Amino acid sequence: MSLDGFMPRLTRRRWLAAAALSVALAACAPMPSAPAADPLPSWNEGANKQRIVDFVKAVTTAGGKDYVAPGDRIAVFDNDGTLWVEHPMYTQLAFVLDRIRQLAPQHPQWKTQEPFKSLLAGDMKGVQAAGEKGLIEMLLAAQSGSTPEEFERVVGEWMKTAKHPRFKRPYDELTYQPMQELLRYLRANGFKTFIVSGGTVDLMRGFIEPVYGIPNEQVIGSRQKFAFTVKDGKPMVTMLPAIEFIDDKEGKPIAIAQIIGKRPIAAFGNSDGDFQMLQWTTAGSGRRLGMLVHHDDAVREYAYDRDTAFGRLADGLDQYQAMGWGLISMKNDWKVVFAPGK
Amino acid sequence: MSLDGFMPRLTRRRWLAAAALSVALAACAPMPSAPAADPLPSWNEGANKQRIVDFVKAVTTAGGKDYVAPGDRIAVFDNDGTLWVEHPMYTQLAFVLDRIRQLAPQHPQWKTQEPFKSLLAGDMKGVQAAGEKGLIEMLLAAQSGSTPEEFERVVGEWMKTAKHPRFKRPYDELTYQPMQELLRYLRANGFKTFIVSGGTVDLMRGFIEPVYGIPNEQVIGSRQKFAFTVKDGKPMVTMLPAIEFIDDKEGKPIAIAQIIGKRPIAAFGNSDGDFQMLQWTTAGSGRRLGMLVHHDDAVREYAYDRDTAFGRLADGLDQYQAMGWGLISMKNDWKVVFAPGK
Repeated sequence: MSLDGFMPRLTRRRWLAAAALSVALAACAPMPSAPAADPLPSWNEGANKQRIVDFVKAVTTAGGKDYVAPGDRIAVFDNDGTLWVEHPMYTQLAFVLDRIRQLAPQHPQWKTQEPFKSLLAGDMKGVQAAGEKGLIEMLLAAQSGSTPEEFERVVGEWMKTAKHPRFKRPYDELTYQPMQELLRYLRANGFKTFIVSGGTVDLMRGFIEPVYGIPNEQVIGSRQKFAFTVKDGKPMVTMLPAIEFIDDKEGKPIAIAQIIGKRPIAAFGNSDGDFQMLQWTTAGSGRRLGMLVHHDDAVREYAYDRDTAFGRLADGLDQYQAMGWGLISMKNDWKVVFAPGK
Repeated sequence: MSLDGFMPRLTRRRWLAAAALSVALAACAPMPSAPAADPLPSWNEGANKQRIVDFVKAVTTAGGKDYVAPGDRIAVFDNDGTLWVEHPMYTQLAFVLDRIRQLAPQHPQWKTQEPFKSLLAGDMKGVQAAGEKGLIEMLLAAQSGSTPEEFERVVGEWMKTAKHPRFKRPYDELTYQPMQELLRYLRANGFKTFIVSGGTVDLMRGFIEPVYGIPNEQVIGSRQKFAFTVKDGKPMVTMLPAIEFIDDKEGKPIAIAQIIGKRPIAAFGNSDGDFQMLQWTTAGSGRRLGMLVHHDDAVREYAYDRDTAFGRLADGLDQYQAMGWGLISMKNDWKVVFAPGK
């Protein structure tokens, strides 16, 4: 929207009135004649930034061959390692370990029961020895029995006090500034942005809305079973100690198809858990964008890919070129890594 | 947004320029000084219309004791019997029966296999004798094997040709005009509207977006199992012949908690399948709205409640007053029933 068509020749007096109106206009829609600010200032110029900008331009140019209607501009993002830090361990795991320690006084049996016993004794090797089964057992012990609303509050409280062991900052400050800009840039261009993460959805809902500007209903994750009960006339939904759905690998496209009900046109991940999501997204007809964040910056964050317990990237590294995906180098593509503090 | 503050004293010439600008302004935001048109013109004045208007005013009045931030203005709607006709049978069932007839030539075994045999012979009593198990068997036979995108197209094609047996109009024209107005009224007041229906979600996604203005990602329903496979390098999500989740009764609050991740502040239904959804919604703290559509208009639509196979309402009738819910009379509260033709 511009004043040009309406007021071709302005006297000073009319200009003042028009200027006041233009303030009002600017408040409701961006003026296309204004010089376009860089929407991705934390990204270095290069092939990856260009790929994003070209894609957005292509799918939003009305009449263009790649145009996509706003309702179909669905973009999906993995969370751990794609939008925020996932080393030295998934933040959800850090929460679970803290929560088990906090709940321990109410569960005296944990003193003799693995993997709780090792955790409470500070023996992390013992915890690791319990493997995935032990981790899930701890997760369910930490996350069951309450309503999802109560659990969100517990997570929110934890987020206020817990600190990342290396960066000494709250975990929700350790989101990647370039990805935050990308989320906002896509939304400013009519995209609807979704999180599609392996983490359990209720944990994410304890902090995600203010951090990424993504509402609960656009967060997809692994799901615990829920129960609905009525006690003394009071209806309640409670979290049960059982996993209903794992939102990882094949689970990601399945959850997207079931819950979003549309194939995304853009997908962002960082590990092989995101492979199928990118594969399904970019195999759709029309222009698509798939990108992987590569953790290659040991100085500012971490460097890992094929050989790590959290966020392993091997298939993606081997195949990203053949699949036509972009590989984002944290080291080379990003001017800064973390968003500024709150 | 108004021009008043900027241009208190207008000359004719300036007025012309300002008028042109006001057109531009009007395009981006409603002017609060304009007289408020009735947002629910198909509703007769009365307690139910007033209840809706009072609720919306209460939760949207900034600074008021009942104010709810826009992000938490979640309203959920059942579909069958709440937003559109569900007699003489659920529209999904009409689709399934037509689809089985259409697919029959590819399934010669159905000629000797119940309930397919009865259906193909036109023996509806035989179909009914197969009970719920038989219906689900037919549903899965009608709705499996394709991708959800292909299935949406099949449903869309059917919707173009199938006609309701009594009203002789396409099913997607048999939505309730007063409820359509209610959906728009809530959205105009910052609500996000969701469908939470017992029907399978992929069937609904074949027609809902243009009909109700509700995008796929805000449609929750019963879910079939999906599979993700890669064949000759082509990734695919396909619908399996198995039900994963039934979105009815206790299932509704569970699905809302899992997928929306927020307790709604308003819920609308018409049958006992919606009871728990209304119960959970209205038990939340702060101001809430629960309403049931009562089918009491045999002349313009249908009259049924306690004694029907589709949309039984007994618990709701017995308890709506004690629960503080509104009971909408189609006969008395609605000036018109159906939305005008396309």
